[in-house]
Order: sequence, then C-alpha cells, then structure tokens
Amino acid sequence: MEKKVRFAIIGAGRIGQVHAENLTRHIQEAEVVAIADVVEEAAEQTARRFGIACASGEPAEIFCREDVDAVAICSSTETHANFIIQAARSGKHAFCEKPIALDLPAVDAALEAVAECGTKLQIGFNRRFDPNFRGVRDAIRNGEVGSPYLAQITSRDPAPPPLSYVRGSGGLFLDMMIHDFDMARFLLDDEVEDVSASGAVRVDPAIGEAGDIDTAVVTLRYGCGALGVITNSRQAVYGGDQRVEVLGSLGSVSCENNTPDRVIRQTEAGVIHPKPLYFFLERYLTAYGDELRSFIRAILDDTEVEVTGGDGRAPVVLALAASKSYREKRAVAVSEISV
Amino acid sequence: MEKKVRFAIIGAGRIGQVHAENLTRHIQEAEVVAIADVVEEAAEQTARRFGIACASGEPAEIFCREDVDAVAICSSTETHANFIIQAARSGKHAFCEKPIALDLPAVDAALEAVAECGTKLQIGFNRRFDPNFRGVRDAIRNGEVGSPYLAQITSRDPAPPPLSYVRGSGGLFLDMMIHDFDMARFLLDDEVEDVSASGAVRVDPAIGEAGDIDTAVVTLRYGCGALGVITNSRQAVYGGDQRVEVLGSLGSVSCENNTPDRVIRQTEAGVIHPKPLYFFLERYLTAYGDELRSFIRAILDDTEVEVTGGDGRAPVVLALAASKSYREKRAVAVSEISV
Amino acid sequence: MEKKVRFAIIGAGRIGQVHAENLTRHIQEAEVVAIADVVEEAAEQTARRFGIACASGEPAEIFCREDVDAVAICSSTETHANFIIQAARSGKHAFCEKPIALDLPAVDAALEAVAECGTKLQIGFNRRFDPNFRGVRDAIRNGEVGSPYLAQITSRDPAPPPLSYVRGSGGLFLDMMIHDFDMARFLLDDEVEDVSASGAVRVDPAIGEAGDIDTAVVTLRYGCGALGVITNSRQAVYGGDQRVEVLGSLGSVSCENNTPDRVIRQTEAGVIHPKPLYFFLERYLTAYGDELRSFIRAILDDTEVEVTGGDGRAPVVLALAASKSYREKRAVAVSEISV
Amino acid sequence: MEKKVRFAIIGAGRIGQVHAENLTRHIQEAEVVAIADVVEEAAEQTARRFGIACASGEPAEIFCREDVDAVAICSSTETHANFIIQAARSGKHAFCEKPIALDLPAVDAALEAVAECGTKLQIGFNRRFDPNFRGVRDAIRNGEVGSPYLAQITSRDPAPPPLSYVRGSGGLFLDMMIHDFDMARFLLDDEVEDVSASGAVRVDPAIGEAGDIDTAVVTLRYGCGALGVITNSRQAVYGGDQRVEVLGSLGSVSCENNTPDRVIRQTEAGVIHPKPLYFFLERYLTAYGDELRSFIRAILDDTEVEVTGGDGRAPVVLALAASKSYREKRAVAVSEISV
Repeated sequence: MEKKVRFAIIGAGRIGQVHAENLTRHIQEAEVVAIADVVEEAAEQTARRFGIACASGEPAEIFCREDVDAVAICSSTETHANFIIQAARSGKHAFCEKPIALDLPAVDAALEAVAECGTKLQIGFNRRFDPNFRGVRDAIRNGEVGSPYLAQITSRDPAPPPLSYVRGSGGLFLDMMIHDFDMARFLLDDEVEDVSASGAVRVDPAIGEAGDIDTAVVTLRYGCGALGVITNSRQAVYGGDQRVEVLGSLGSVSCENNTPDRVIRQTEAGVIHPKPLYFFLERYLTAYGDELRSFIRAILDDTEVEVTGGDGRAPVVLALAASKSYREKRAVAVSEISV
Repeated sequence: MEKKVRFAIIGAGRIGQVHAENLTRHIQEAEVVAIADVVEEAAEQTARRFGIACASGEPAEIFCREDVDAVAICSSTETHANFIIQAARSGKHAFCEKPIALDLPAVDAALEAVAECGTKLQIGFNRRFDPNFRGVRDAIRNGEVGSPYLAQITSRDPAPPPLSYVRGSGGLFLDMMIHDFDMARFLLDDEVEDVSASGAVRVDPAIGEAGDIDTAVVTLRYGCGALGVITNSRQAVYGGDQRVEVLGSLGSVSCENNTPDRVIRQTEAGVIHPKPLYFFLERYLTAYGDELRSFIRAILDDTEVEVTGGDGRAPVVLALAASKSYREKRAVAVSEISV
Repeated sequence: MEKKVRFAIIGAGRIGQVHAENLTRHIQEAEVVAIADVVEEAAEQTARRFGIACASGEPAEIFCREDVDAVAICSSTETHANFIIQAARSGKHAFCEKPIALDLPAVDAALEAVAECGTKLQIGFNRRFDPNFRGVRDAIRNGEVGSPYLAQITSRDPAPPPLSYVRGSGGLFLDMMIHDFDMARFLLDDEVEDVSASGAVRVDPAIGEAGDIDTAVVTLRYGCGALGVITNSRQAVYGGDQRVEVLGSLGSVSCENNTPDRVIRQTEAGVIHPKPLYFFLERYLTAYGDELRSFIRAILDDTEVEVTGGDGRAPVVLALAASKSYREKRAVAVSEISV
Repeated sequence: MEKKVRFAIIGAGRIGQVHAENLTRHIQEAEVVAIADVVEEAAEQTARRFGIACASGEPAEIFCREDVDAVAICSSTETHANFIIQAARSGKHAFCEKPIALDLPAVDAALEAVAECGTKLQIGFNRRFDPNFRGVRDAIRNGEVGSPYLAQITSRDPAPPPLSYVRGSGGLFLDMMIHDFDMARFLLDDEVEDVSASGAVRVDPAIGEAGDIDTAVVTLRYGCGALGVITNSRQAVYGGDQRVEVLGSLGSVSCENNTPDRVIRQTEAGVIHPKPLYFFLERYLTAYGDELRSFIRAILDDTEVEVTGGDGRAPVVLALAASKSYREKRAVAVSEISV
C-alpha cells in the first residue's frame, strides 16, 4: 500500500471545496482528516459532502493534530501568512493559495518561518499546471523559440467580481494580475527588472469609485533584456480569456483557450466556434488536481516543491511595483520595491 | 448516504481496467465487489491495483453472488452474448462492450433474455458520450441544421491492430466501422435503410492476406431520405482522427478532434498546431466515465438506459449489410439482413 | 514588345464576361479582338464595357477572321463540341468551358478534330488553378502523403440553380459533380476505374420533379487501388463549400475554404469566424485568370496545355458511369462506359 | 468613356513600381504619363516595363507638366514634404508614401501648402485598406464591440532591414511603428492622449550600435479613456505578422494573418497550417490597389480623401512622443509634443 499524505483543509469556500474534492476523490496518495472554517457550518457541510471525518470552526485546532501531515490553506488572503507560520512551527507542510500576503513584511515573515522550520511550502499558482501554459513554457525551455524577444500575456475575466470583493482585494495588480506576473516569470524562467503600468476604468465606474481599475497594461523588462507585456480586463463577455505568446529568434509559441467542446456551426450568421470556458474553475480543472499531486509528490519524495515561497513573493513585488508605476506614471525598477 | 450500485467486472484487459478505474475511483455511486477473468492472474492484478476485494478466474461465479447488482462485461466479443444472458437470468443488470455478437441469432438470443428478465442492458458505445459528438447530435436535435441532407463520418485509427487481432475481429465493418454505424444512427436519430460499401487494402497487404480490408467507404440512405457516408482507415499516422459533419437546410454542424493541448508553434517550418490525441482511450477519457454514470443513473432511477440492446443490434445489422454490399458490389437494403 | 495572343470570345454571359475582363485588363500577353454572342446586344454591351473593337451576333464569323489566334468558348454546353471543331478546322486554338459535351460521341468528335488539326485545346477546369487545390495536389506529388489511401472531396453550392437551368443541365453528375470528377483525377494523378453512386432529393422537391437529384455521394476506386469519395449538395446556406482531403501512409493534406477576410468576433453568441466566399466567381477569382495565363503560355511557348481534351473527356465518362450506377444501384466499372 | 486621372510617379523604387503596376494595369480610371527618379536609369527601366511614355531623371520637371493631374510620391522620406509642397503649388493632387517627414515643422509646412492651394493629399497608410483591418474597424464602428476597453496591435516584420536603412530611418518608432500608430487611430476613430514606451535590442546588436531598437512595446491612452498597446519586433522568422484585436463591453473583434493558401498538412510532426505571407508587399497586394482607387475616386468626385494630411501628421506626433517616453522612462502626454 502506497504511503498517503494526510491533509487538513483550512477554509471551506469555493476553492477549499475544489481542493477537498481532488484530495478526497481523485488523488490516491492523499486523505483528508479534517476541515476547518471560521464558519463552522461551512466546514461541516463540506465534511459531509466529501466524507471528511472531522469538521471544526477553529482553524487553529488543526495545527495541534498529530495525524495531519500537511495543510491546504484556502482561507481569505489576510490569514495566509499567519497560517503558513503556524503550519511551519507545528511541523506541517503547507499548500497555500495565492497571494501569500498583500504586504512584503508579512510575506517575508512567513517565508522565514518556513525556512527556519524546514517544512515545505507550495503556492497555489495553478496556471503553472495548465497543459497549455506548461506546453508553452516547455517549448521555450526546449529552445524552440530561440532567444526570447517578447512575451505577451493576455488575461481577461468573464465578469468583474462583486464590489465588496474589489474593495478588499488589494487592487487589480495584486488580485488579478498577480497570476500574470507569476506567468511572466514562469514562461521565461527569468526575473523581471522593471515595470511600467497603465490602467483605466472601462468596465464599471463603480470599480473606479472603489479606488480600483478594471483594465490595465503593464510592460515588463526581463533580466535577459527581453520585453513583456501583460494586458488585463475584468470583463470579456464571451468567457475567461487567458492566452500567452512568446516570440523569439526562432519563431513564436502561443496557446489558445480551452473550450467546452470542438463543435463548429456553419450558418448564415457565420462559422461559429465554441467560446472559451467561462469560468476559471472549469478552465483549470485538471491544473487544480495536478498542483496538489505535485505538492504531494514533493512531500513523499522529499524534493523541492515546484512553486516555492520565493515564487509566491516575486509576483507580490511586481504587483507593488506596478501599482507604484501606475501612480507615478513612470517606469519603476523592481529594486525600488525590494532588494 | 447515497445508494451505490455494486458492480462485478468480467474481463481484466485494457477496457476492463478503464472501467475498473472509473468505477472504483471516479464514480461515487458505484463500488466494485469482484472482478473475474479467465486468466486468474490478470483478475488478481487488477483487483490489487484498484482495491477490489475479490478476484476470480471463473466469470460464471460472478452470477451467483448476492452482493452484485450489475456486471460490466469487458471480456472478448464471442463471450458477450452468453454473459448477457447469464446476467439477465441471475437478475443482474449488464453493461456490455460492443459488439453484442458478430452474428444476429446470438444477438437476438441475448436481447430476448434481457427482455424476458426485465433487467437493464446498456451497450458500450462510448462515443455517444463524447462531448463533441454529443454536441453535434444535440445541435441537430435542436433543429440547428434544419432538415438534414447529408451526414459525413470520418474515422481513422492511428495504427492498425496486430494481425492476430484482425483475424478474429470479424472484419473492419464489424470491428471498426460498427462505432460509426452507431454514430450514424445517433446523430440523426433515424434508421439507415440501405448501404453501399467499397473497401480496399492500402495500409498493409498482410491485412488483405488475412481476408480483411483496411480502408473503406460506406454510403448510407436514411429513412428520412438523407444520405450518409462513412470513411474508415486503419492508419492515420498523426493520431486518432474522428470527426463528423451533418449538413442540412440551415447549415452544417461538425466537430474536430481533441488535442492534448492548444499550443501553437510558428516557425520557419509553418504554423504547427497540436495533433489529435493519438489513442482512443485518451480521446474518450471522459466518455468512458460518463457512459457508466449514465448506466448507474438508469439503475438507480429505474429509467431506460441511454444505449439500449436495440442500439447494440442495429449496427451489427448495418455491418453485415455493408459486408454483403462490399462482396456483391451493389447497394444492399437493410431489410435483406433483418426485418 | 512581348508577343500577344489575339483572342475572340464566343458567349457574352456571366463566364464570358469574367474571361473578357481578365483578357482585356489583367493579362498583358492577351488582347481581345472580337466577341460574339447569338444575342447580339449582349455581345455589343460586353464589347463596350471592355473596349473590344468588334461585336457580333454570329459566332461563326469568328472563325473566318485572320486576326484571331485563339477562341474562348463560353457559350452554352450544347454548342461547345461544334465550336471546338470549327476552331480546330480554322487553325485556331480553343479554350473551352466545361463540359465539352454531355454525350461521348460528341466529345470524341471534337477531340478528333483537334488531334487532326494540331491546334491546342484547353478545358476550363478552373479549380485546378485554385491555390488551395493546387497546393494539395503539389503536396501529394511531392510525396508528402506517401502512398494514397483515400481522397475525400466535399462540394456544396450556396444555393441551387433555377429550375429552368436544372432541366437542361444534364443532371447533377454532369453539371455539378463533373468539377469534382476532374478534381479526383487531378489530385491523385491517377484514373478512376469504378464508381458507385447514391443520390437524393433533399434541397427542393421541384428538383426531383424535374428528374434530377440535389444531394449525392459517389465512391470511386482509383487504378492504384486507393478509394475516393465525392459528396455534393446543391445548397449550403453559409456559402460555397469546396474542400478536399487526401489521406495516405504519411498523413493527410487538406484545404479549407477561402473567406472574404480573417476577422474573428468573440461575443456572447460564440467565436464567429468568417463564412466561405459565397459564390464560385469570387472563390476562383485568381484561378480564372491563371487558367488563361497557362493557356496563353502554352500557345506562346508551343507546349502542352495543362488541361487537355482528354482531361475534358474523362470526367464526362465518370459522370455517365455515376448516372448508371445511381440508376442501377450497383458499382459500375468505367470500362462499361468507355474503353 | 470614363474620365481618367493622369498620374506622374516620383520614385522608381520598390514601392514606386507597385504603384506603377496598379496605375497602369489594374486601375481603369488612371493613366501614367510620366515617371521620374533621380536615378534616371531606374525611371527608364520602370517606364519600359509598364509602358509609360516619359521617363525623367528630374523629378522637378514633373510639376511643370500640364498633362499631370496627380503625383504619386514614392521617393525617399526626406523628399516627401518638399514634393508635397511643389505638387500643391503647381495645382496637382498628391498621393504620398508615409511618413510625410520625420520632424513636425516639415510636416506642418507641407500641410499648410496643401491647405492654401486646395489640392488633395492622401497619405499611403495602405493598411487602412486591408480587408482584415478594415473589417475590424467596421465592426467597431457598427458597435459590435460596444464601448472599447483595450486595443492590442501586434506588428512583426519577417526580417530586419539592412543596417544602412536603419541608420537613416528615424528609428523604429518613426519607421516601423508609425503604421501601428496610424492603425491605433484608425481602429477606434479616436485620438491618443498619452503614450508610454519600452524598447530593447533583441534581434541584432548591430541595430543597437546604430542607435536604434528592434523590439518595442508602447502603451496608449485614448481620449475616450480606453487603453491600447502596440508591440513591434523587427524579426519574426515565420513571416510578416500583423494582427489587431479590440476588446469592449460586447466582446472582441480581431483579425489574423493572410496566408498564401489554406492547405493543412497532418503528419507525425503535427498539424501544419500555412505561414503568414512573408512580405508586406504580398500581404497588402489588394490594399495597394484599393488606396489608389480611393484617392482617384476622391479626385473624380471631388470629395474628402480617406487618409488626410492630418492622418499623416498624427502618427508622427505619436512616434515622437514614444521616442521621448522611451528616453525618459515615463509616460508622455501627446500635448507635450504638439498642441
């Protein structure tokens, strides 16, 4: 019988349930022994749904349990850093949803605790496990584009989040584009040295009134000298639209969106192809399972995780630099934010 | 706790293992209590792999078990009809891989037993559960193509099966095109009235020496008057290629192949898109799970199965008619084979 | 100054005007000295439009002119063979629209006259000059598909012709599918040895009442042993749909339709690609010019034309065989029609 | 007989020959009475090739001719403004290749002369006449994207120009991206208010040594508040790659590249689609004819030209702003350059 990693899940919201389903049903090497949520009823409901033996309203209890090898931190962002620290101190590995925190001192405190305790920490940048993005990255690694010139990352949500969410989100750069900052680093396996950001309120004036933007373009300069550009929109009515392209000396590699099927209609109205999958949970279905499989494999084999704490920190730095660039209407060196 | 359907699996070969994995790991409403294979070791190995409590070298034992609600018949074709009969007589529902049998009397004996005993029988035409083919069928049902004119079904295997397999297969029409005969009926929800077949040996002369063909075109005439055409090839080096298109008064609906990803390379050699998934097990991964889910749902809700015994019989008739047409170089009415 | 070929055009209908425009405006090596049409006014109007010096109501006059090197025969089908003979006897090269004639004796008389007189005859199978079809053919010639297994030719008109036209057309096989019979030979550079035809009336019952069909499938067997299949429909509401695909031991080569542009709309309704060009005159715009350039080049260089009289005869034979197969519901060897 | 516009062409280089071919062969409403080039032999050679009666080594002579209605200015950039002025003063309409000049005072002097003399001036932004870009623009005008959020313009040359050309080009922003600045205005029918530029030397270090860049990203803010981003690369080995996409409240409209054909190869190496047309002259073949047709129509009907002198000036302003932004690493308001 293969060894299993025993998980506790913190947070029984949308993403907590995705991970619960994968860990209880689809990943043989995992079992879930407990789930905790400050809303105890939510924990209980999810526990019933996935046959998890223990549900709790006290996340802190999780860290006292002897039968827990690893925690999946799926609670709200402001709790992440603290739970990472508690996990590390109680000798438990942690899988944590992004971002680690919205301010760098909190991020750094969490990473230090992990480093001191020698536990593993993996950040939930699930897009790194999407076969399309991974395929582009692998092609670049294989030298298929040659020397990179330019990376273009397009990222559009199908619809903006509720205003209440926007207000606590830390802003588009930290909440939405953070995935793309991670993607920018992932694709080229290189660090970004300076950023230049533009933003606008185009989708909904209420987002502007809440102090945020809903449309943005950020230009990046990589350490190797290549350029990058990320465009974000909070709304693309035809579905979630996430594509990347990298051009280099030997050509370009890009990826298109996944679609629910490959059915094509030819009518008087046109040749109608399927729309992209609407929602990120559908789009990244296999990626959510695969990131956990990768984390579990790192634990069982005692190897480096695929998405490290440092990988969780870097996009926060970039998001902070982008915010500064947007406010000051000038290019901002990453070194101005963090050395 | 939801009620579960308790399965026994007969046959621990490739397809038996696919169903074992789905039933044990991915379908909550099923459990597998036993697996049998005439090669006992194969049964034992698969039982170990998927945590099935009982493994047996005697498929007949399965039918005596009280704790089995349904059997999944995944053994070789010549055993199908007999196992269907045994399942029916022992009051067990049966999910049976296609084809039911290569000769009509055997098929009819099996269907009669099922009818007498009032058990359920579903035939494993998994392509009916593929989202692409289903999407085309649904569009036609929704009236999106209007009155149908012409159905075109393209089906190509990546590589021919071993010659040993070819010899016992019943020939291309009964072994390979039988899926497409089913698809022809499924897409238009209509019966085929006559067929006209052409065949050739193009892929491998040894297939011809074994008395079979490897390339074929069959034209169909539907009851409604529409035409259909099925083309088959035992080899498409770029992968499994299965597409359909239906043209009608309002336009056409078609589907393209699934691919492992959506990565596109632009190089001096061209703009390179991903190849179709090579093997049918990859292409129909979700379809294999979904056909079992559908069968289980029919048992739990006591409703009609989605792919009936009659649906298993009709393509055998069409395959026999196509064989006759090919030999006699003339159009053959289905009524010449079966009334 | 480069030598020019002096043309007379017979027939001032739709296709006559297409050739007139190409010969007067876009092909430097041609000039048009006269145009004739039994409807004299039509000839005069076209002459004015394209600056042609002489217009006549008497096509026969054309053949007496000393200043005419070649004739472009664009009159109605039943006049083709006779005009070819007159052209040959008066020492003029002839470019003739397809088909040469609807019956073989007339075709053969025309070809004999040409052979006796040593003039050149090119048949207007314009699709051979379409970059897409030519690209597929060239790929096959280059060995890119390896040994051919199966050729699939899809041909759909946007809308059926007027009933008056249908009645005199010789039927779908001779009027519409004749292009595809030519394409079948062109693609594989091989002769068809037997055909098997199915047909139906699906688009308009009035076409059936006029004694014709509007939907058809014809299976072909090539001399090399490969199979082919042609599907025809008189109506595809989304535009003219003409595609081919050839599968062989090394893969497949196919071509898609031309579209007016490459604009893609992503909306809530789907991802909408442009429809195929509606009408064959738009689709084959460059092909119409290129077939004439090829003919002129053969005259100026005194080389073999690219589409010979034999190439004009063969599809007539195939169409007659298909008609016979359709009537007799059996495969018909081409040798039954013509040796 | 329709009235014709009598042209003189100044400049017998690559683009001069393209216009000569269109004006002499493909545009009925034009004739070319003279061609001038400082290299007299070039003028003579082109005159012979296209049957132009008069060839001259003295462009200035052109403006004295009574029989010239319009000039096509295809000479090197530094001569454009002066020839525009001479054309205006001699009462001749001018079609002028882009850019008008590399510095604003010269541009303004040319536009003033035209305004004073009341002649017509059209700038050769040929991409405005490409069916794909025009299709996107028309869709936006029709309200198909709703309120615009973001315009993305991708523009890549197949290979960098010779270094000698680079040195005199005015730099990437004025030489290459100027087309995209025009496209940015054309697509949204709106003015750009500020720009933010990044650039890099990635393709060839020698370009950097010549004081230029070969890779660039420019972010734009439109008057309406929408954002735009233009990416440029001097090299895409797979061909000329020019695409645009505009996202708005109702979805997105984009266009893909033209290809030489629509042939698709499926092999073990992948599914290979055709590459974009390599060279801009091929890509914009019809656009070059159509921009002249549009100019001639404006002359014959005495209407406003489709691409005005102001349309020629605005991208120069944007290019100068982008250069300044690149040098100063900050967002630059267009009003800093020109009011």
